[in-house]
Amino acid sequence: MLIALFPGDGIGPEIVAQAKRVLDALAIPGLTYEDGLVGGAAYKAVGHPLPPETLETAKRADAILFGAVGDPDCDSLERHLRPEQAILGLRKELGLFSNLRPAKVFPELAHESALKPEVAGSIDLLIVRETNGDVYFGEKGFRTTADGLREGYDIMSYNEAEVRRIAHAGFQAARARRGKLCSVDKANVLETSQLWRDVVIEVSADYPDVALTHMYVDNAAMQLVRNPGQFDVIVTGNLFGDILSDQASMCVGSIGMLASATLNGSGQGLYEPIHGSAPDIAGQGKANPLATILSAAMMLRYSLNLPEQADRIETAVAKALANGARSPDLGGTMNTVEMGDAVLAVL
Amino acid sequence: MLIALFPGDGIGPEIVAQAKRVLDALAIPGLTYEDGLVGGAAYKAVGHPLPPETLETAKRADAILFGAVGDPDCDSLERHLRPEQAILGLRKELGLFSNLRPAKVFPELAHESALKPEVAGSIDLLIVRETNGDVYFGEKGFRTTADGLREGYDIMSYNEAEVRRIAHAGFQAARARRGKLCSVDKANVLETSQLWRDVVIEVSADYPDVALTHMYVDNAAMQLVRNPGQFDVIVTGNLFGDILSDQASMCVGSIGMLASATLNGSGQGLYEPIHGSAPDIAGQGKANPLATILSAAMMLRYSLNLPEQADRIETAVAKALANGARSPDLGGTMNTVEMGDAVLAVL
Ligand SMILES: CC(C)[C@H](C(=O)O)[C@@H](O)C(=O)O
Ligand SMILES: CC(C)[C@H](C(=O)O)[C@@H](O)C(=O)O
Repeated sequence: MLIALFPGDGIGPEIVAQAKRVLDALAIPGLTYEDGLVGGAAYKAVGHPLPPETLETAKRADAILFGAVGDPDCDSLERHLRPEQAILGLRKELGLFSNLRPAKVFPELAHESALKPEVAGSIDLLIVRETNGDVYFGEKGFRTTADGLREGYDIMSYNEAEVRRIAHAGFQAARARRGKLCSVDKANVLETSQLWRDVVIEVSADYPDVALTHMYVDNAAMQLVRNPGQFDVIVTGNLFGDILSDQASMCVGSIGMLASATLNGSGQGLYEPIHGSAPDIAGQGKANPLATILSAAMMLRYSLNLPEQADRIETAVAKALANGARSPDLGGTMNTVEMGDAVLAVL
Repeated sequence: MLIALFPGDGIGPEIVAQAKRVLDALAIPGLTYEDGLVGGAAYKAVGHPLPPETLETAKRADAILFGAVGDPDCDSLERHLRPEQAILGLRKELGLFSNLRPAKVFPELAHESALKPEVAGSIDLLIVRETNGDVYFGEKGFRTTADGLREGYDIMSYNEAEVRRIAHAGFQAARARRGKLCSVDKANVLETSQLWRDVVIEVSADYPDVALTHMYVDNAAMQLVRNPGQFDVIVTGNLFGDILSDQASMCVGSIGMLASATLNGSGQGLYEPIHGSAPDIAGQGKANPLATILSAAMMLRYSLNLPEQADRIETAVAKALANGARSPDLGGTMNTVEMGDAVLAVL
């Protein structure tokens, strides 16, 4: 089985290296690896954030372990050359439409959140975000109004097939958890949301065991602060999912701990920490590799069908934390390699 | 000067009545009032959430004091007949494009927030939200794809004139406060946001005394949880403003305390509490009228040019709180009229 390793920018190489050490320690037979350039690193080397060779590696791979992209040197490039196009391009080219972002507080870290510990401690939710459609990928551009004014526009849309497949992903995730699915939209204003809601209701007929609710996105943003413990699985579109999943991760507090998976219909997936490339601390050994290590665990579970090995990693991370492993973002002094060591020691 | 009183649905009539008592107590010469039906109440009475007579009253008025709209009886109506169309229609018909939502914690109530008291206590921000454009008012509808699939679509757009006027509103607000403006967009994905950012930067040339920053909306949703004290004024579009302003208000905790204003270019404004119609407690005297009373204060300041009278109301509300006035949402037992009494007693 082929794993594509795309470390990317900033702290990406440091954290992916630790995840690779953990994978190596599991000595899983038949795993092979192939490196690829993405993001600002790829732009600087070959002039494009998602070079053809990288895309080709990604397509052949069973899974992609991704670090992070984002490089201040690239801020003034045209949009199609900027580092984040690597992630948007991979999602689109590989049909990675189902972005899974679990948010759960490790008890030892509940005090890291800006939320009261009892509120933060109640968080155990999964956001299922659609990542192939919405206003991200519709027609967009600049035009001139009848009055000669510059205007920017972007078409938001979803068709029923796009909504149906992500709705199924949401219901199946809810079925495997606590059986509650909250679909988030803005159906009081948007036709895209009305179609979304209609189709989610249609799909719900296949899941009588899952309790479906609907919430407007503005209310969801409130409820994620007020009472995040009420949520089990949230399913939503690309734009609302972008906002709410980042908000939820910050409610957990320790953003250096949160993993994500983005899957297509054939089990291929891209796995990455939800934090960014942190250029300010790149190369200093200060980055927390645990989110990337936990992303590797998600990879074993979802793309490589190795749930026991995934459990082993997750248990080891929890133990390392319980043993006091703390990088600077968690209020400690351990460097990136020492954090990797702490996980390996209990694996 | 004419004030339109639109109590609306649910707790609307109860809370607007208390704000009216406070205005009466100020005995401001030359104020006249005219009532109007909006929302579900208007639909039930005359078949439309924003009847022509109401719109006509609104247009003649110097300011509108608005309660809340929203009625579960209307949930299955077609969208153009639902209560919230009253507020969208008033914004559009009167050109009310600049929605101001201050979020600040009253020290006595800092513990009400789900955020840690020291984080909640640091909040003192103003969201300036554009409310006449964006994906709210673009072309929208249902269509069939080439493959025969149902599709919903909504066009997001802003032109330079729309961005310029709200940018000026943002810079002016920042100038009158702590001199910091954060413009929130999603310019890494949306052309609408790129135009937004370009125009905000152009307008900034007129405000060398204001420090302008830009933030992506997903990051803003994180920062509002992590460190809301970093913000002074946030300026953003209609959709992002809808989400972020509700999130910010929940960070404050006591949503029954938060007022808002929506202004057009001629000083006309609509003033309303940011909470909803709360049908579950309507008619029971449990509603907290303070957000509506504070909205009346904003009305005196922004539309009627009576800043001293506005100060009097705001000081009275703060004193009433300091004296221990607490409705059920604030952990107390005082009813709606008693809360009004508590403000009147110290006015
Ligand atoms: C980098 C950016 C284009 C991307 C997105 O908006 O999807 C990121 O915020 C994410 O959530 O993965
Ligand atoms: C009721 C709804 C249409 C409205 C909006 O989305 O603008 C509301 O959420 C608000 O923020 O005033």
